[in-house]
Amino acid sequence: MTDKDTKTYCDFEAAYGQMQELVEHYLSAAPSVIRKYTSHLTKSKGKFVRACALLTCAMDEEDRVCEEAVQLAAAVELLHLATLVHDDVIDDSDLRRGTETLQKKFGKKVAVICGDYLLSLALRIVTAIPYKDEYQKLDMPDYLSRICMGELLQEINNSNLELSVYRYLTIIRGKTAVMFEASFYGGAVFATKDKKELQLYKRIGSYVGMIFQLMDDCIDYEANQSDAKKNVRSDYEEGVITLPLIHAMEENGNFYSKVKQQELGAEAVYDEVLKAGGTDYTRKLAGRYYKKALGAMEKLAMSEAKKSRMMAVLDKSFFGITKNHISN
Amino acid sequence: MTDKDTKTYCDFEAAYGQMQELVEHYLSAAPSVIRKYTSHLTKSKGKFVRACALLTCAMDEEDRVCEEAVQLAAAVELLHLATLVHDDVIDDSDLRRGTETLQKKFGKKVAVICGDYLLSLALRIVTAIPYKDEYQKLDMPDYLSRICMGELLQEINNSNLELSVYRYLTIIRGKTAVMFEASFYGGAVFATKDKKELQLYKRIGSYVGMIFQLMDDCIDYEANQSDAKKNVRSDYEEGVITLPLIHAMEENGNFYSKVKQQELGAEAVYDEVLKAGGTDYTRKLAGRYYKKALGAMEKLAMSEAKKSRMMAVLDKSFFGITKNHISN
Repeated sequence: MTDKDTKTYCDFEAAYGQMQELVEHYLSAAPSVIRKYTSHLTKSKGKFVRACALLTCAMDEEDRVCEEAVQLAAAVELLHLATLVHDDVIDDSDLRRGTETLQKKFGKKVAVICGDYLLSLALRIVTAIPYKDEYQKLDMPDYLSRICMGELLQEINNSNLELSVYRYLTIIRGKTAVMFEASFYGGAVFATKDKKELQLYKRIGSYVGMIFQLMDDCIDYEANQSDAKKNVRSDYEEGVITLPLIHAMEENGNFYSKVKQQELGAEAVYDEVLKAGGTDYTRKLAGRYYKKALGAMEKLAMSEAKKSRMMAVLDKSFFGITKNHISN
Repeated sequence: MTDKDTKTYCDFEAAYGQMQELVEHYLSAAPSVIRKYTSHLTKSKGKFVRACALLTCAMDEEDRVCEEAVQLAAAVELLHLATLVHDDVIDDSDLRRGTETLQKKFGKKVAVICGDYLLSLALRIVTAIPYKDEYQKLDMPDYLSRICMGELLQEINNSNLELSVYRYLTIIRGKTAVMFEASFYGGAVFATKDKKELQLYKRIGSYVGMIFQLMDDCIDYEANQSDAKKNVRSDYEEGVITLPLIHAMEENGNFYSKVKQQELGAEAVYDEVLKAGGTDYTRKLAGRYYKKALGAMEKLAMSEAKKSRMMAVLDKSFFGITKNHISN
């Protein structure tokens, strides 16, 4: 009897719905001592981009998604949520996804513990998934280690105006792209056993993650507080040096000196970055990753339905919206 | 070919030495971005009590310890270290094991991230151990969840003078005893497959953990700063309500009222707790757990050498020193 006989499958929409329900369930039905805090996290819905990518990659030749992929997708979202909760402690953030952060509402102590709880919850789910042979190479704790190192590198370079483009890219590869890589790979193991294909999925995931972070860094410089569901125009004030600023300083030595001497207020810095083309440059780099992802996708054999969904994920990362790729 | 043929074994002392080297290696040979912080943690040696317990329980009928148990013991110590690093963030502690804490030296942000890294490192080691069938029931992330809930319960009850003895015991069961349970169980799976025996090991581990915490709570009230290698006489000021205080308030309603009205300075509270027999009572309760542990030990068939080592762990928890049980 093969795995196929014993596994439960459903279509993408059903799998996506089940994943959302699972995440909701894990948060709102947590043990009583922690429920008050985890259920606060259900008030603000994430975009489930990572889970969506995972389920898309998990689609088999008949466009079906297995139950185990749904579990893994829920675990990935909870792991992501755990890193957000700790991020908010680290960055002292008040607002996340349009809602008060856990650390703001209940204090840093509770937030540190809840983040740890969510980490352990995510890893518990991964441990409990049967058919381990398929994804045992997907070492979640290892991905978590790499995320930590990305975050640490960012923290070390806080307010470092000499941060190079290369080092900036290393930081965002760790803090964002790694999780997307894990999501793409985590889904793909249910769809193919071909090592080259798996490597391609990984690479696309990494590109998508880079695009997401680059575009996110642009948004921080461009958006208004009322549009964005989190604090914007905050990176600079928090000492988070991102590509728009790095590029603007490289383009304009006079601007660099003024920033260095702290002669400019935050608003002036934001305006100058836009004027110097900092976000245009960043967007252009994201476009290059978009093309690379497209190139890698072309090497993968997949159904039209799966391709449409992959394109939707890719477009979401670059354009911030899902274009009409999905016919069904 | 059975496991026995392919596994590498050594005696307890060698295993203990290897475990220490492994922990040291993981901390001092971490990836460069995080090494500065993890290697700071090697400056202060822990007592390796949990690893020692694990290796003791792992001793087989020929008093040998397998390599996998050494790995698991190192993972348990690193997991414990992770919780300490986060604890120090939560409690704002300056001193741990006689050395400046990570959060004091490098700030809370770095400490939160390093704690996450250590968690992921510990779980990575567990994932990488072969012969998973033997300890796959040992769900480390699940133990981590339970520790988080214990810590959360403690945090919720910060400064809660109405905390009952029952609820206090629930807190310390989570925050301390669970990890000892995991250590005893994690070792025992390498020594026996008998379910009843495994349950007994678990139970002894839980008792030993309770004893450790009860004695630790006594030390906070009794010790001088110069003797202890961490901040003592600090629980009360940090709002951590422990059994010595709970008992003293139950014994003396007048004292309770004064504490409630915040009429007493910290030193007066500490002195009054000792006078009212708060630590004597706590020590007596620890003694009851000690007897229970002895009772459970008697039901386990084990060599004299293993029994001596188990007694040493038990005595260490209660008396704070290793009595001369070990002949070799």
